Amino acid sequence: MQSVEHLQELFLKYLKNELFDQSPRELYEPVNYILQLGGKRLRPVLLLMGANLFSEEIDHALPAALAIEIFHNFSLVHDDIMDEAPLRRGQPTVHIKYGQNAGILSGDAMLILTYQYLNQLKNPTQLPTILQIFNQLAIEVCEGQQYDMNFETEESVEIAAYLKMIELKTSVLIAGGLKIGALIGGANEKDANDLYEFGRHIGIAFQLQDDILDTFGDPEKFGKKVGGDIAQNKKTFLLLKSLEQARDQDRVDLLEALSDAADPNQKIEQVTSIYRKLKVQEQASELMEDYLKKAFIYLDRVQVEDARKVYLRNLANQLMMREI
Amino acid sequence: MQSVEHLQELFLKYLKNELFDQSPRELYEPVNYILQLGGKRLRPVLLLMGANLFSEEIDHALPAALAIEIFHNFSLVHDDIMDEAPLRRGQPTVHIKYGQNAGILSGDAMLILTYQYLNQLKNPTQLPTILQIFNQLAIEVCEGQQYDMNFETEESVEIAAYLKMIELKTSVLIAGGLKIGALIGGANEKDANDLYEFGRHIGIAFQLQDDILDTFGDPEKFGKKVGGDIAQNKKTFLLLKSLEQARDQDRVDLLEALSDAADPNQKIEQVTSIYRKLKVQEQASELMEDYLKKAFIYLDRVQVEDARKVYLRNLANQLMMREI
Repeated sequence: MQSVEHLQELFLKYLKNELFDQSPRELYEPVNYILQLGGKRLRPVLLLMGANLFSEEIDHALPAALAIEIFHNFSLVHDDIMDEAPLRRGQPTVHIKYGQNAGILSGDAMLILTYQYLNQLKNPTQLPTILQIFNQLAIEVCEGQQYDMNFETEESVEIAAYLKMIELKTSVLIAGGLKIGALIGGANEKDANDLYEFGRHIGIAFQLQDDILDTFGDPEKFGKKVGGDIAQNKKTFLLLKSLEQARDQDRVDLLEALSDAADPNQKIEQVTSIYRKLKVQEQASELMEDYLKKAFIYLDRVQVEDARKVYLRNLANQLMMREI
Repeated sequence: MQSVEHLQELFLKYLKNELFDQSPRELYEPVNYILQLGGKRLRPVLLLMGANLFSEEIDHALPAALAIEIFHNFSLVHDDIMDEAPLRRGQPTVHIKYGQNAGILSGDAMLILTYQYLNQLKNPTQLPTILQIFNQLAIEVCEGQQYDMNFETEESVEIAAYLKMIELKTSVLIAGGLKIGALIGGANEKDANDLYEFGRHIGIAFQLQDDILDTFGDPEKFGKKVGGDIAQNKKTFLLLKSLEQARDQDRVDLLEALSDAADPNQKIEQVTSIYRKLKVQEQASELMEDYLKKAFIYLDRVQVEDARKVYLRNLANQLMMREI
């Protein structure tokens, strides 16, 4: 069994060797740039952990781990164009640094490279199954991004639709990566599916907690300014739940605060105070805990000795504690 | 053996049944729109013909044929954004009709859908080979588009680099589709490779002829205005060859005509007259004939009885005559 740190190291060493020096340079340089911007490499590490639950030989899961990382970065590059985001991990986004066309075309190339790495399975008879899992999560990530964009202009969004969106946009990549890793490691279908559900529930819990921390988190620990979601009128769980539950004067105050474009600090204060009054943080935490509990029930079900699950369980806990 | 018309009909019937009615509508509507804009469906028909050379059961090549058509349309959608093209087949391009973000994201979804259809092989043991062929052509199409964009701003482009660009941007999709079709039909590797080379050479010949027709074609038969490439300073074979060969006063005249932005008709007339003087049309025709000859040598090599090749040979000839 290998620790997070060791898997990160293993993955980074592999990635470094796989960087692209082909022509045309204008196509591949942005790919290398985004792949080297850093990050915790959580998705590939989780895939390797999925494999490591069932096998000590995890080297042959490295191409699939890189596939997942390239796909994740492809989605960042294209999402950053759509969201007009200037920065990613504190550095210029690809379309800012290299131009929009480079962002589109290099992103396309990354999506194709993803499939090149998926086609490097040690056991090619697994390819139809693994390709099916991957194709499904990939199209779901696109659907999630579309729902997210739709929500920006929709007046009311149901909580159920919001949960579905974060599941598609965030969770299925983690879940599918774990499942693919497990299958490469030799898991049976049932165990692979239980790991998928573990990842899916952890992903949703993580995103719900993200919503909470953006308003109520300790800015020193959380590492970003509190209230950003409120300032942008972002439709988070907290806001949607408040819109669902605010009555009478609370509702009037909330809608007024939302329409206040003048002073972001005052807006954050007003909306946060309504959140407190309606206890939406507690409701979000409760739901988050519920997903987390279910996640660990799925992990418990996986039929390998408990000692093998320690690193994965710890990583999930570290993630939720924002200690990684 | 089935005719072009029959294969087109078979493909269109299959496509119609496969249109996407999933949610979110905003993601899938542009996909259906571009897939129904028409066109001759040459790429899927060629794939089906590749299969039909070796087998009468071509129905199970339909998903791969649709994959190739979806991929082709994905590349049109993203290229049209990069080229800022307002029209495609006389209708608004996807990004004009639905917005740029829809163009990017629906294009991404199409690329993923391509792989979903490739994963519907009747014989899944072929998947690693077919995925490898497809991944290679797909990344080459991106490389071709990048080279094409690079050429717009490069001062001088070698003829060899131009030929490589049209090969990547146009030919490998035709060639790879034929090869995938052949393999699905049961071809051995040698025959499949010969068909690939047939398609690669036909594609380059077709594109060279396209360059010739844009300047010297009969506008009634060719269906578009003559001289468009010259008006846009597009680096075609004719222009690159002229820049390579023009000396003294011809060179001065050519460069002057190229920099003339005032009167497109006069510019077209001047540049065409230099083309005539330098006999670049004849040189392009000679090279085109050479590719064509080689294409048919590769087709001759394919080890199936000659009668089975009639429709494919006719289609290639019709294409070159612009009769389809």
